[in-house]
Amino acid sequence: MALIEELAAIVGADQVLTGTDAAPFGTDWTGALVTQPLAVVRPADTTQVAAVVRACRAAGTAMVPVSGNTGLAGGTMAEGAVMISLSRLRRIVEIRPEARVAVVEAGVVLSDLHDAVAEHGLAFPLTFGARGSAMIGGVLSTNAGGSNVLRYGSTRGMCLGLEAVLPDGAVLDLMGQLHKDNSGYALKDLLIGAEGTLGLITGAVLRLVPAPKAYATALLALPSLGAALEVLNRLQEATGGGVEAFEYMPAAYHVAYETLYPTASFPLAQRPEISVLVEVGATASQDAAPGEDGVPPVLAQVQDRLAQMMEQGLITDAAVARSEAQRRALWARREAAAEVTVAQGPMVLVDIAVPLDAVEGFLARVEPRVRAILPDAQTLWVSHLGDGNIHYSVHHAAMTPPLKERLTEVIEDTVAALGGSFSAEHGVGTLKRGTMARRKDPVALATMQAIKRALDPENLMNPGKVLP
Amino acid sequence: MALIEELAAIVGADQVLTGTDAAPFGTDWTGALVTQPLAVVRPADTTQVAAVVRACRAAGTAMVPVSGNTGLAGGTMAEGAVMISLSRLRRIVEIRPEARVAVVEAGVVLSDLHDAVAEHGLAFPLTFGARGSAMIGGVLSTNAGGSNVLRYGSTRGMCLGLEAVLPDGAVLDLMGQLHKDNSGYALKDLLIGAEGTLGLITGAVLRLVPAPKAYATALLALPSLGAALEVLNRLQEATGGGVEAFEYMPAAYHVAYETLYPTASFPLAQRPEISVLVEVGATASQDAAPGEDGVPPVLAQVQDRLAQMMEQGLITDAAVARSEAQRRALWARREAAAEVTVAQGPMVLVDIAVPLDAVEGFLARVEPRVRAILPDAQTLWVSHLGDGNIHYSVHHAAMTPPLKERLTEVIEDTVAALGGSFSAEHGVGTLKRGTMARRKDPVALATMQAIKRALDPENLMNPGKVLP
Repeated sequence: MALIEELAAIVGADQVLTGTDAAPFGTDWTGALVTQPLAVVRPADTTQVAAVVRACRAAGTAMVPVSGNTGLAGGTMAEGAVMISLSRLRRIVEIRPEARVAVVEAGVVLSDLHDAVAEHGLAFPLTFGARGSAMIGGVLSTNAGGSNVLRYGSTRGMCLGLEAVLPDGAVLDLMGQLHKDNSGYALKDLLIGAEGTLGLITGAVLRLVPAPKAYATALLALPSLGAALEVLNRLQEATGGGVEAFEYMPAAYHVAYETLYPTASFPLAQRPEISVLVEVGATASQDAAPGEDGVPPVLAQVQDRLAQMMEQGLITDAAVARSEAQRRALWARREAAAEVTVAQGPMVLVDIAVPLDAVEGFLARVEPRVRAILPDAQTLWVSHLGDGNIHYSVHHAAMTPPLKERLTEVIEDTVAALGGSFSAEHGVGTLKRGTMARRKDPVALATMQAIKRALDPENLMNPGKVLP
Repeated sequence: MALIEELAAIVGADQVLTGTDAAPFGTDWTGALVTQPLAVVRPADTTQVAAVVRACRAAGTAMVPVSGNTGLAGGTMAEGAVMISLSRLRRIVEIRPEARVAVVEAGVVLSDLHDAVAEHGLAFPLTFGARGSAMIGGVLSTNAGGSNVLRYGSTRGMCLGLEAVLPDGAVLDLMGQLHKDNSGYALKDLLIGAEGTLGLITGAVLRLVPAPKAYATALLALPSLGAALEVLNRLQEATGGGVEAFEYMPAAYHVAYETLYPTASFPLAQRPEISVLVEVGATASQDAAPGEDGVPPVLAQVQDRLAQMMEQGLITDAAVARSEAQRRALWARREAAAEVTVAQGPMVLVDIAVPLDAVEGFLARVEPRVRAILPDAQTLWVSHLGDGNIHYSVHHAAMTPPLKERLTEVIEDTVAALGGSFSAEHGVGTLKRGTMARRKDPVALATMQAIKRALDPENLMNPGKVLP
């Protein structure tokens, strides 16, 4: 095959995988989506990526970028396509502590970046369970969210500059280290979240923040979801906006987690229907340095406020992490969500967002509707409650495609009625294309399609993703 | 004229201005740019805006949106065009204090929004000198910056949802109140900062934040610009990221300000070459509630840290505002920048950004280069130093177009060599189109033009702005 030979000439024969070597790349993390790519190529740098893109384009062959392959929306399905792996673009080019930026290639693994900037007392604060595999390119392509969007905003906002190879093979250089740049249209923001359909991200300039010097982390039991926003706002008030994460887990989630991880111990006396993992990060020394009692002021502040809220009935119980090990155990519980969910068997999984005060309303409405379709379904959810973002899944041994379709419709109807979005932070990928067609404002959809046609007229960059 | 009659039928004859009634809208705030619009129409709502757009499109007549007319880049020049004024879309539709969002029409004046949300103890934190006239539509269209981007990020990040009328008259409804929404391309972000060339913003959902309960505001004298980033980072460290603004003014600026406002008194013993207006906002009660000495803890903290830095020679003097009146006086000084600059007479004014640690390098390089061209020029600048954003102007009584051209080239060369942007927060408008052609990455430029052609093939939406 002429194209394969041409690709080998660009990246080296040992960096072109085909057949069974390529197959694992065509299967998604959940194992549910299986495709057979024509080949997987592993370019060494942006120049090689651009040459690969031009070769594929000349051959009329579809291209699918892949980095950590941790997506949950089928964004890298690649039947018959050339997959372009970013795994060799793994240089952290530069960390500038004073200016608080990191310059990275797209194949840098998120947790490697975390480790590298931690040495400077800084953080790249976006994080989620898959951080040990997910790479910056994929994080940016999907505008991945996670637990700390509450404090630091989205991936889009944490990215100052970008380099990408466009569908025609041209290299777009927007690698500015600037905090303000109004020199034309927001191309950086457009490429972030486009899931590789408008170009292939090869590098980025990322904003860093001071790493918290101490944390106050606790699992709270709440009497109702209605109280949650008040609890969050009061903790923000007490800590000057220091709440890093505010994660809701229902009792069923704890049970499912402990089934999968039987040695885990639950830190409260009972498993409350509504529990929230809250974490406050203190970046100021005076909030972090332990007092005479060995307790950092941030922890004392949070404890005081929790006690006050318990008296007022806003929370019914609280377990504060007393050590880094206890803190890690709380986070391990939350961050196992993908594994816990997949372990429940055949499912419909949605990643949705509603206004901050509509999470309770969403659950109250959706649960009976799901039961009306599948009375003995198991439902499970976890929620970045401070962002109004819910990962909701319906499980049943006898799940069929038509059932999936009906359940998805019902869940999405509920989301739409509350002014929510059918896609919060996981992306649209392959799995939500039908939903895009049904649910997205038609004017928005037509506008997206016009942009896609303008930048990728031959529809070769990650075709079949995002747009119907 | 058929079009004028048609517009009158849509918005009412009294809302269509022509001739001398329309003329003031065609002149920019500085008075330097003068155009004569065909007409100014004042639609009452989004439906009327859409009808006006369709009528203009059918007639093949260019449209120019205008809100507060406070721009500094000629973004509303409108020779022969129909200007669409947003001034009647001035409803604050909804403020939701718990969920911390405001829903507004595009014609709401920025300071009116500030006042309305302040009643709830909240803030829409973006602000700048023109806030009493600038309207939300223009703020969003230009992705306007200002003094508080340092703490809260750009306008783009503060906007959760958007409504816009596209060039074909369709209404794009992205008015979600969501903190995470990955349902397709970032159309909201694309329209923000597009200066009306891709559509006309008619409404927005804006994120609100808790209003600071107390401020520590001071004017600092610094021994060098090189020390500034260290001072900023230490103040951030001391206050847990509470620095709202970090504004650099040189001695020449203070002299120019006091010439224009002779009753203003300078709060330090001498006018230092390098002074910085710093403001810390405390949102937590325990940082804001005055202690026994009547001093809010935030002020005590900042004073302690300033004293420490003075001992270490990082700052040479400091005047802390002791009252709201003193604080306002400091801010009045900074916020008069546009007036002070215009008062210096014929000028070249650039709004540029460089990496945070390159401001000193920019000034050190640009000043001799400007003097080499115009030895007796007066130069003036103020800087949002915490964003690397500098407003730099060169004044001379004998300023000519060729001189302007040469000076602009030299300043932009200096910016480009430092990896900076020729447009930070004022926008590109008419004035920087030539610069866009010369300076912008050609791949980025071609991509922008492809998007413009795709969405506005007849080039009727604010033509002649942003793109060459």
